[in-house]
Amino acid sequence: MALIVQKYGGSSVANIERIKNVARRVAGYRQRGEQVIVVVSAMSGVTDGLIKLAKDIVPLPSERELDMLLATGEQQTIALMAIALQALDVPAISMTGAQAGIVTNGVHTKAKIHNITPRQVHQALNAGNVVIVAGFQGETAEGQITTLGRGGSDLTAIALAAALKADLCQIYTDVDGVYTSDPRLVPSAQKLAEISYDEMMELASLGAKVMQTRSVEFAKKFKVIFEVRSSLNDNPGTLVKEETKSMEDVVVRGVSFDKNQAKVTLVGVPDRPGVAAQVFKAIGEANINVDMIIQNIGHGNGSRATDLSFTVDKPDLAKAKKVIAQLQAEIGFRDLLSDEQIGKLSIVGVGMKSHSGIAGKLFETLAHEGINIGMISTSEIKVSVIIDLAKGDQAVRAVHQAFIG
Amino acid sequence: MALIVQKYGGSSVANIERIKNVARRVAGYRQRGEQVIVVVSAMSGVTDGLIKLAKDIVPLPSERELDMLLATGEQQTIALMAIALQALDVPAISMTGAQAGIVTNGVHTKAKIHNITPRQVHQALNAGNVVIVAGFQGETAEGQITTLGRGGSDLTAIALAAALKADLCQIYTDVDGVYTSDPRLVPSAQKLAEISYDEMMELASLGAKVMQTRSVEFAKKFKVIFEVRSSLNDNPGTLVKEETKSMEDVVVRGVSFDKNQAKVTLVGVPDRPGVAAQVFKAIGEANINVDMIIQNIGHGNGSRATDLSFTVDKPDLAKAKKVIAQLQAEIGFRDLLSDEQIGKLSIVGVGMKSHSGIAGKLFETLAHEGINIGMISTSEIKVSVIIDLAKGDQAVRAVHQAFIG
Repeated sequence: MALIVQKYGGSSVANIERIKNVARRVAGYRQRGEQVIVVVSAMSGVTDGLIKLAKDIVPLPSERELDMLLATGEQQTIALMAIALQALDVPAISMTGAQAGIVTNGVHTKAKIHNITPRQVHQALNAGNVVIVAGFQGETAEGQITTLGRGGSDLTAIALAAALKADLCQIYTDVDGVYTSDPRLVPSAQKLAEISYDEMMELASLGAKVMQTRSVEFAKKFKVIFEVRSSLNDNPGTLVKEETKSMEDVVVRGVSFDKNQAKVTLVGVPDRPGVAAQVFKAIGEANINVDMIIQNIGHGNGSRATDLSFTVDKPDLAKAKKVIAQLQAEIGFRDLLSDEQIGKLSIVGVGMKSHSGIAGKLFETLAHEGINIGMISTSEIKVSVIIDLAKGDQAVRAVHQAFIG
Repeated sequence: MALIVQKYGGSSVANIERIKNVARRVAGYRQRGEQVIVVVSAMSGVTDGLIKLAKDIVPLPSERELDMLLATGEQQTIALMAIALQALDVPAISMTGAQAGIVTNGVHTKAKIHNITPRQVHQALNAGNVVIVAGFQGETAEGQITTLGRGGSDLTAIALAAALKADLCQIYTDVDGVYTSDPRLVPSAQKLAEISYDEMMELASLGAKVMQTRSVEFAKKFKVIFEVRSSLNDNPGTLVKEETKSMEDVVVRGVSFDKNQAKVTLVGVPDRPGVAAQVFKAIGEANINVDMIIQNIGHGNGSRATDLSFTVDKPDLAKAKKVIAQLQAEIGFRDLLSDEQIGKLSIVGVGMKSHSGIAGKLFETLAHEGINIGMISTSEIKVSVIIDLAKGDQAVRAVHQAFIG
């Protein structure tokens, strides 16, 4: 009897019909004698609707109260899923993140899992139940409700799989697996049978919508092999695991484009030591993730001043600007600009480590398309560039053609 | 500095504008230096929408899972209310029933409050916060989420007022107070300045929509004086308290009509001892409240058989019929009938205790209107009759005219 953790995202539980579909799939595993833990997200649209309600009151609602509000989305899905399974005569019991023992720190809206004490999950499994756990949420040791941030339901699934030493972890979504690029955009994109944690992390962090980086990071850390597959069919998906030798033969495994980026620029920053530290300390304290950073050369208008630019996730832009604006007097920069009309194109592959000239070929491809490159960042297994948002589709197609075909 | 518990029902928090209105009212009390605890219901329509989702899956969803589902309604309102207060610069913190220390038994969808351990509420009040508590919900000692049944938010408010020894408890609703009858139906209906717990309980149990019996019962038990008033204006409401001498001068204080009743009839029940006990034991175990019971005289078709009728709340009808149907073989009744086209008209007043002829005058008034009486039940301070649902409005107007004016 294997223990399987399955996670179903918002689109897989978007309405009662889809919830019933998932219940039938789960019932099938159960009939084959497996123990099943089901992690679910909020029905798609629910979380956004709740955020809209809160923002109709005030643009920047308290994060503690946002967590209190948003946690209800997943709580609704678990109850409905349990009811759907019971309707198929499958014993099932729902649990909030807190009840499932997901203990987090107190950073509201972006909490990190501290530890998992799945006592109730064990008991309910042993009593023959399918256990349905609310993804995306947890509770602090003091009993405060927290949420784990974007992609938090994947994290819940992978963390539970690790804590319960599950035999299998399946992340069900609305795509068949991980592709070399977005198939809607690049018709020649191919599904990958396997991908390494590192590649998946880069792809995740680079806008491939399948999963968030931190879930993959967690899976890597706790060696949870998981499969990304579709809840709409029975096709095998993509297995995510430690890299294998054969993976290194392929240089570029994926091309992604992240539209969720925004650029902040501080214009006329006095060119003295410690300014960047001031800026990014404040940004960090506000729990905003910064991706790329560049500092331009001074304009030389008499006084020495530079421009400082960095990128953040679009939803964090308002908060980032507020944090920076509060520093204006202290730092003395001249102006604060932002740009949401940008995107980040990336190529990823473990094979890059042992191949040179990859970045050059990327820049050349883009130049050939007449696309300007803003910022650049590289790692051992990826190269990313910031380009004009409107040029994203064209760029992805050209780069996929150049590297993958 | 007084401690005030205020409860706002679903229509008072039906949308963001109304939530902001309530926040402004609460902020006003706070500015006058009061400590305020706010108990809220789900935004109107939310609970019904959730029940519909569950019933779209299966007609009789598990009650544990219904509680898990429905508790989210109030949890959404508390978060939004806290955000609305914070937007007015009033420190506020939301708490689920569990966080507020509402400990219940494990009877899902109709849980009873065991005790209240409002440690977190005290702490938050002492730290200067308005505390916003989710009505209608609690948690068992084992950490299971429960709901308190219809009118549960009133109960939460009154129980918190009792536990915290509040100076004042205000039940805000969409009516100005308790009237001698429904003013939409009876234009001459008058608002009562005061009413006794006993009268309020009878009115509550008889379909006056203002409050449920059990909340008033709880208030009486713990001597919580509370005021029923409108969230839409600043008019004084109706004070509910122990009866005073002056109250007894008025014979009939209210006329109500409960449309939420349904009648179940077991036809051809063998006339032997223990049958009624069997029936009502099973009904009781299913946590269904029975109101009136009558047993007709046998038809005398050779074998001795009787008809047994009783009334339940309409939402419990399906469950009641299911429970009874399972007893058919055991009991051997011939047929099971039900009727939703009935209503219960009642007259209430502590003054009745010392006046005779009240029931006779009621029956005469109805006879004069050509309205048939089905079942009858009486207590020291009320008389109730079951009549045709369609005749309800006519009956209430005639009876109000006869007793109150």
